[in-house]
Amino acid sequence: MVQATTADTALDIDDVTIAYIGGGSRQWAPNLIQDLAQSPISGQVRLYDASHESAAQNARFGNWVQERDGAVADWSYEATDSLEVALTGADVVIISTQYDPAETFVHDLDIPLEYGIYGAVAATIGPGGIFRAMRTIPLYREFAAAIREYCPDAWVFNYTNPVHFVTRALYDEFPEINVLGLCHEVLGTRHRLARYAREYLELDAERADISVNVKGINHFTWVDEARCRGVDLMPLIDDLAATDVAHQEFTWDDLEGESVFDDNWQVTWELYRRFGVLPAAGDRHLIEYATWFMQGGKEGLNRWGVQRTGSDYRAKHWTPAESKQTTDVEAWLSGEKAFELTESNETFVDILLALVGETTYVTNVNLPNVGQCDDLQRDAVVETNAIVTANEVKPLAAGGFPRPVRSVIRGHIDTIETVVEASRDGDVDHAFQGFLVDQQVRTLQTEDARDLFAELAAAEADYLEDWDLEGSAVLTESDAYRPE
Amino acid sequence: MVQATTADTALDIDDVTIAYIGGGSRQWAPNLIQDLAQSPISGQVRLYDASHESAAQNARFGNWVQERDGAVADWSYEATDSLEVALTGADVVIISTQYDPAETFVHDLDIPLEYGIYGAVAATIGPGGIFRAMRTIPLYREFAAAIREYCPDAWVFNYTNPVHFVTRALYDEFPEINVLGLCHEVLGTRHRLARYAREYLELDAERADISVNVKGINHFTWVDEARCRGVDLMPLIDDLAATDVAHQEFTWDDLEGESVFDDNWQVTWELYRRFGVLPAAGDRHLIEYATWFMQGGKEGLNRWGVQRTGSDYRAKHWTPAESKQTTDVEAWLSGEKAFELTESNETFVDILLALVGETTYVTNVNLPNVGQCDDLQRDAVVETNAIVTANEVKPLAAGGFPRPVRSVIRGHIDTIETVVEASRDGDVDHAFQGFLVDQQVRTLQTEDARDLFAELAAAEADYLEDWDLEGSAVLTESDAYRPE
Amino acid sequence: MVQATTADTALDIDDVTIAYIGGGSRQWAPNLIQDLAQSPISGQVRLYDASHESAAQNARFGNWVQERDGAVADWSYEATDSLEVALTGADVVIISTQYDPAETFVHDLDIPLEYGIYGAVAATIGPGGIFRAMRTIPLYREFAAAIREYCPDAWVFNYTNPVHFVTRALYDEFPEINVLGLCHEVLGTRHRLARYAREYLELDAERADISVNVKGINHFTWVDEARCRGVDLMPLIDDLAATDVAHQEFTWDDLEGESVFDDNWQVTWELYRRFGVLPAAGDRHLIEYATWFMQGGKEGLNRWGVQRTGSDYRAKHWTPAESKQTTDVEAWLSGEKAFELTESNETFVDILLALVGETTYVTNVNLPNVGQCDDLQRDAVVETNAIVTANEVKPLAAGGFPRPVRSVIRGHIDTIETVVEASRDGDVDHAFQGFLVDQQVRTLQTEDARDLFAELAAAEADYLEDWDLEGSAVLTESDAYRPE
Amino acid sequence: MVQATTADTALDIDDVTIAYIGGGSRQWAPNLIQDLAQSPISGQVRLYDASHESAAQNARFGNWVQERDGAVADWSYEATDSLEVALTGADVVIISTQYDPAETFVHDLDIPLEYGIYGAVAATIGPGGIFRAMRTIPLYREFAAAIREYCPDAWVFNYTNPVHFVTRALYDEFPEINVLGLCHEVLGTRHRLARYAREYLELDAERADISVNVKGINHFTWVDEARCRGVDLMPLIDDLAATDVAHQEFTWDDLEGESVFDDNWQVTWELYRRFGVLPAAGDRHLIEYATWFMQGGKEGLNRWGVQRTGSDYRAKHWTPAESKQTTDVEAWLSGEKAFELTESNETFVDILLALVGETTYVTNVNLPNVGQCDDLQRDAVVETNAIVTANEVKPLAAGGFPRPVRSVIRGHIDTIETVVEASRDGDVDHAFQGFLVDQQVRTLQTEDARDLFAELAAAEADYLEDWDLEGSAVLTESDAYRPE
Repeated sequence: MVQATTADTALDIDDVTIAYIGGGSRQWAPNLIQDLAQSPISGQVRLYDASHESAAQNARFGNWVQERDGAVADWSYEATDSLEVALTGADVVIISTQYDPAETFVHDLDIPLEYGIYGAVAATIGPGGIFRAMRTIPLYREFAAAIREYCPDAWVFNYTNPVHFVTRALYDEFPEINVLGLCHEVLGTRHRLARYAREYLELDAERADISVNVKGINHFTWVDEARCRGVDLMPLIDDLAATDVAHQEFTWDDLEGESVFDDNWQVTWELYRRFGVLPAAGDRHLIEYATWFMQGGKEGLNRWGVQRTGSDYRAKHWTPAESKQTTDVEAWLSGEKAFELTESNETFVDILLALVGETTYVTNVNLPNVGQCDDLQRDAVVETNAIVTANEVKPLAAGGFPRPVRSVIRGHIDTIETVVEASRDGDVDHAFQGFLVDQQVRTLQTEDARDLFAELAAAEADYLEDWDLEGSAVLTESDAYRPE
Repeated sequence: MVQATTADTALDIDDVTIAYIGGGSRQWAPNLIQDLAQSPISGQVRLYDASHESAAQNARFGNWVQERDGAVADWSYEATDSLEVALTGADVVIISTQYDPAETFVHDLDIPLEYGIYGAVAATIGPGGIFRAMRTIPLYREFAAAIREYCPDAWVFNYTNPVHFVTRALYDEFPEINVLGLCHEVLGTRHRLARYAREYLELDAERADISVNVKGINHFTWVDEARCRGVDLMPLIDDLAATDVAHQEFTWDDLEGESVFDDNWQVTWELYRRFGVLPAAGDRHLIEYATWFMQGGKEGLNRWGVQRTGSDYRAKHWTPAESKQTTDVEAWLSGEKAFELTESNETFVDILLALVGETTYVTNVNLPNVGQCDDLQRDAVVETNAIVTANEVKPLAAGGFPRPVRSVIRGHIDTIETVVEASRDGDVDHAFQGFLVDQQVRTLQTEDARDLFAELAAAEADYLEDWDLEGSAVLTESDAYRPE
Repeated sequence: MVQATTADTALDIDDVTIAYIGGGSRQWAPNLIQDLAQSPISGQVRLYDASHESAAQNARFGNWVQERDGAVADWSYEATDSLEVALTGADVVIISTQYDPAETFVHDLDIPLEYGIYGAVAATIGPGGIFRAMRTIPLYREFAAAIREYCPDAWVFNYTNPVHFVTRALYDEFPEINVLGLCHEVLGTRHRLARYAREYLELDAERADISVNVKGINHFTWVDEARCRGVDLMPLIDDLAATDVAHQEFTWDDLEGESVFDDNWQVTWELYRRFGVLPAAGDRHLIEYATWFMQGGKEGLNRWGVQRTGSDYRAKHWTPAESKQTTDVEAWLSGEKAFELTESNETFVDILLALVGETTYVTNVNLPNVGQCDDLQRDAVVETNAIVTANEVKPLAAGGFPRPVRSVIRGHIDTIETVVEASRDGDVDHAFQGFLVDQQVRTLQTEDARDLFAELAAAEADYLEDWDLEGSAVLTESDAYRPE
Repeated sequence: MVQATTADTALDIDDVTIAYIGGGSRQWAPNLIQDLAQSPISGQVRLYDASHESAAQNARFGNWVQERDGAVADWSYEATDSLEVALTGADVVIISTQYDPAETFVHDLDIPLEYGIYGAVAATIGPGGIFRAMRTIPLYREFAAAIREYCPDAWVFNYTNPVHFVTRALYDEFPEINVLGLCHEVLGTRHRLARYAREYLELDAERADISVNVKGINHFTWVDEARCRGVDLMPLIDDLAATDVAHQEFTWDDLEGESVFDDNWQVTWELYRRFGVLPAAGDRHLIEYATWFMQGGKEGLNRWGVQRTGSDYRAKHWTPAESKQTTDVEAWLSGEKAFELTESNETFVDILLALVGETTYVTNVNLPNVGQCDDLQRDAVVETNAIVTANEVKPLAAGGFPRPVRSVIRGHIDTIETVVEASRDGDVDHAFQGFLVDQQVRTLQTEDARDLFAELAAAEADYLEDWDLEGSAVLTESDAYRPE
């Protein structure tokens, strides 16, 4: 009999091994633990984090949750301080980790602001996004290399921003890797469209009932078909775009005290009116790609219902102290706070269920372009729907864009690709080329762009060790570059 | 309240209107009628056929079936001799019709044979396939024009061969048409792989458990990933290719009396060994595209386990007399033969169930290339998997080909595209360019190619009325062109 | 004997018919007349201008020049007020005409400035360039249609800015037209490189000795190879980029009183340092494409040695009164001023000499992209070298660009293509899409971009008659649109 | 002062160093020596040949020619048996060498014939051409590596067939190499067109007066524009194609005794009639690419005026004995035969004159595709016109092809690229993929193709040392593979 040695490569719903890299200090791991506990899937999770203590506590929490009511699945948790141990034999790898926000995010937000770049998030594109990418990519290249060595066939879930830069770098380092870059923004759009379908068409609609043909790059995705269980929603969108709903103006008074994550969709509507395709990401992200919305400073941004995420929020929100509080894990474990199993809104378990062969699942995923975005560059990481089935993820061919939209997207891809190429050998001047043609940076005079770059590099030099800062012509030209 | 006038465009599982064009004289309609009767879908079917009598009998049969045991759905049938009546308001159109086989197919098979072209099917490529396309395309352009006028949003199912030529011509005539070109061959491959999974891997596998990444053009599709509920089958395929299973030789003695549709997979295995990707169509079709298998005449073809479909079979099998016998409809209606509802193996109802929003269904479909076959020409009709959901069909991005395989595919696409272009204004000499570079015809000396073309044109002139035969330089150069 | 009826289609050096459209009021025609008089070519020139008087005076001047010493060629001149008469049978068409600058140019320069767009020229890209294109394209579509009717095989020389927009529109209207879009900027680069070769390499070098591999779009062309009679100049350029020559800073004091056309090459050097390829257009043009140089206002621009062309200069310089003075024609004809035949620096006669078969000539030409700029869009009008021989112009395959440079070029092409597409049916909102993604306009907040567009449209409404201003959503949204 | 160290890189007309690799035993070197002697260029030539004796004799001859009347240039010749010595510091390298024809060419011609492949030349495509490529490429990879080491900037002239395979392999090995692949066929077409222009249009025309827009791959190039000093020749070609001139039929009686190199143009005319573009290579080559002309065996070939080159001719013609006689060198040197300086028809000196900056020269050259053949694969070696100026060669953008012609060309490129890829690591089975889809081989049944491949490999095994013959599955499957 023919011996097919690989018959065992399918994922086994009763025995999935997950390596969890990072995520120690935030709500993400506790959510996952609870979702898994209520799923039909069983297995083991290995937790690896720069802070071993965080990983260990999550492991304790994970095992503790198994004992709670409603925990139907069978999972065991283990913390490890060895990446090798975490990865070896893993079926699934989740990566979600980053450097100290107080020392990085804060600069990403504040320094560009000094130069007049009034971004809302500063985390995925523009000067802040680019520096975040420059800090993150070298570390993720190491993860990719470790995956190549210890679990090359694993399904890797990347939740780390900037998703396009980071996912691209993982593939650049190890082209055979199976990474899915994941993000919530498109889910939010479907959620909103479900609400419209209920309100205006009196359909009984939830997010899952809405299907969209989505395409673009992460945080700058576009929808040109939308349906609610087969009912075409584009005529409704067209109608709404002309109503007051889509013509609201805001001031700081309206926004103060609101969550920065509130999405008023006014940027979305304006872009739809101009280009005839619907953006599918939060307005706060869109304005960093359709940069003309950023050009009016605070007032200009607020007018569209968007407020800037303050660096103080980032600094405070992401500290270990704050995180502990956020996650509740300690309180739950100590009994200080009553625990009840809840389900998150995350799609991880949905995707995993499809990968183990239980379901067919369609969702938006960031993947290298093999034709799904026909008029964007091949290999660039693009976001479209993909179908997930047993051990398989295939993007759906989503077609192309109206020329002006494509033009803006391609410009961003050029920055992303340039920085990823530059990261191969830490060539700072090469990265600066991508920085200089970035659509946010383009509003700066030549020397200001250079000085902004230099100032960011100086402020974050500790996190840019894999880059040849000393050898850079751009940095040495600028007085702003004075690393300690 | 915003008035979305199109809220009613979703297909309604309880009220689907199907226009059935052709199919009167064969088993296809009775199968469909039975499948529908057992489905959860209800509605009406309008039957239109060149032979109104056939359509009328199928209508009677359809309504009669509704009264049988097991007919759970609610369908009504009506025959019409007006294409306008059949199409107006149709949600779904099925097209399956062709000219008198005794006067066409027979020539397609016999005349090339006189020139030494020993094809097995002669129905989808090569001289016979090209002439079938030339006869069929003008009629299908009329169908496309009628659909544009009477039901532009309908889902159109084309089962007519040559599927690639015909589907392409429908889109060429009416680019916004929603045609799915459908074919069974890939289903057969999945069926076979299921058998191998059972036999060699002891998996519990049916066709539906097998997923493949399939791509190419109809009857010349290729698989580079295959799984059985997530288990990678490529190592098994690799192993099998080296065994006796994949090294069988046949003679006429082995094949005589066997069905021409029996598939011995020896062509499949040989192609897999050479190129490392697995063909996913019956060997009898493959050899008409990988034309080197045709170069040994009868003996050469038989050696690979393939036998030629005789023209006598075609002539007899497709006569009205034979068809009546085949379909049993008369016998059932008269009570001469006991009737029992059976389910066919067709995917039509599966696809329809997905289109009305009941399921998500993935199957191979012929569609214009929008990126699903990244290294083949855009707009050419290619075959890959597509996902079918409520009112939506999207091809999956299937990637590219090894160069030599791509080379052969592109050559066939060039013939197809050339003939379809030529059909726009009936330019015979332009069509001959596609004929001359066809990979079967290439084995003929220049004048022989011309004479074969002329002889076919003369024999089938009655069915080529939309072509400018008189104005053709190629035809007038040849003594073989003597239309009555 | 075979009768080739077209044997007479070669241009005859002794009998060339030139139609001169426009150009009546400026120095261009007098220059051409003198160049032709001293050339080995003879023939007739038909002058057609919106101002018949200007055309008539140039005809008088042309015939008068024939009587002067040094006029070796045999030319006759005739003014006509019929485009049909001018074009019928023409071998060569020169087009160079535009609307009243005082009512158009002035707005192109002044209105964007109110919005903070500190352009130097405002004539070929950015808001001013786009509006100039919108005014000009409809007229040039008429010229293209007339050429199709009266002299479809003629060689057409377009000198009208924006050269890329206008040349593209001519091809869009009549794809078989033979237009060469011509511009002096690359000649200036070669002139400068000759000077460097003399000064630093002690070579005996004139412009004609310098060959460059040039590519891009008009006013934003790039050189990646440069030689002086085979001597590679790139090492010299590399060396110079690091010297003081390439690191000069300017203030208004340095520039005041200098000609706006003086080129200090500091933008050129900075771009070379950043991207490793050498821009080949005047700095005043480059900054409108590499828009980061415009972001510092007057001071920022001056710092790079560039000064803005004032609208007063445009208004005055281009008035009929001023033009008369400029051209001297009246003074020469009246004897008021002594006349001496001089040769201009134009390449028209060089190109014509090659077209009639006397020489082989290589020069930079704007042509639709058929592969000469491999990584830019096909059919877009690009500028590369072309070789001119008897009745033939063929672009040289110039290769691609470093990604960041390509990114900027592609963005501009997207604006150009969008506006040209929009011009087909005068769709203002479509044109606005190109305006909104223009790299100068991107510095404006959403509403400001819209208002700027509306204000320009209102100010120049008289010259935008072929555009559907009333039907535009963008215009009606803005208070700034109040055409009289 | 800036020191540009590369100021001396231009070629110096008075001091050109040529390395001549191979060519020892044929007329080529004596021709070159005489052409150089009569040129305005001076320098030295280093001769390197597998037969040092041949090289030495040519050196003697070269120096001897310098003393003859009419030798105006100043050249010195030196033979060397060191590739390093020959190449170091060379400005120009000429490569023209091959293995013993009696042991290789003869098999290339005779073995395929046994399988019914009736090629006319068997030297550049088809089974013979592919094996010639497989023998030649490894040696030429060594030359490319040596050039990279000893004279990376040199201009390399490759005259060795198969020009497309070999030139491609040189670039594959050393991408920065400056190779021109050169061939006479297009020159022959221009020569013929000049004759037609004289005969039918009464123009005073020589080859140099004819310009063509030529494109394709070597020996399968096509012309879609042709002019005689600007006069369009396409109408004449169109007229002629319909006359008796273009409708001749031949028999062996007509051809017997004629030179195999006589070109009757009947294949050319037939292809022109079919596709509307004019082939620009000898009919004997065309039929090996437009393979339908080969399908009628000897009679079929002769009917088109083409005769097969016999292997006896090859074997005899290319022996050292024959070559000596051919070259006359010995007789001249010994005084046995009177010597008179003659000029060859070669373009080498014309190209060299342009490279040293004396002239501008346009001729057909085989170069990697950077856009000059827009619809063929990038990097494939294609043949178009190129312009040669001082130290620079740039292909002209020649546009695309009618689809059916493009289809045939692309098929051949796929074979070429596959074999070149396979040669990187001597992968025989990979090369066989290219062989199997070759358009000549396609006429063979599967096993016959394999056996033909195996038989050729066995016969020429001594010359295929760089290929992994032992590791090949295809070879071991065949009884025909029995290397001694």
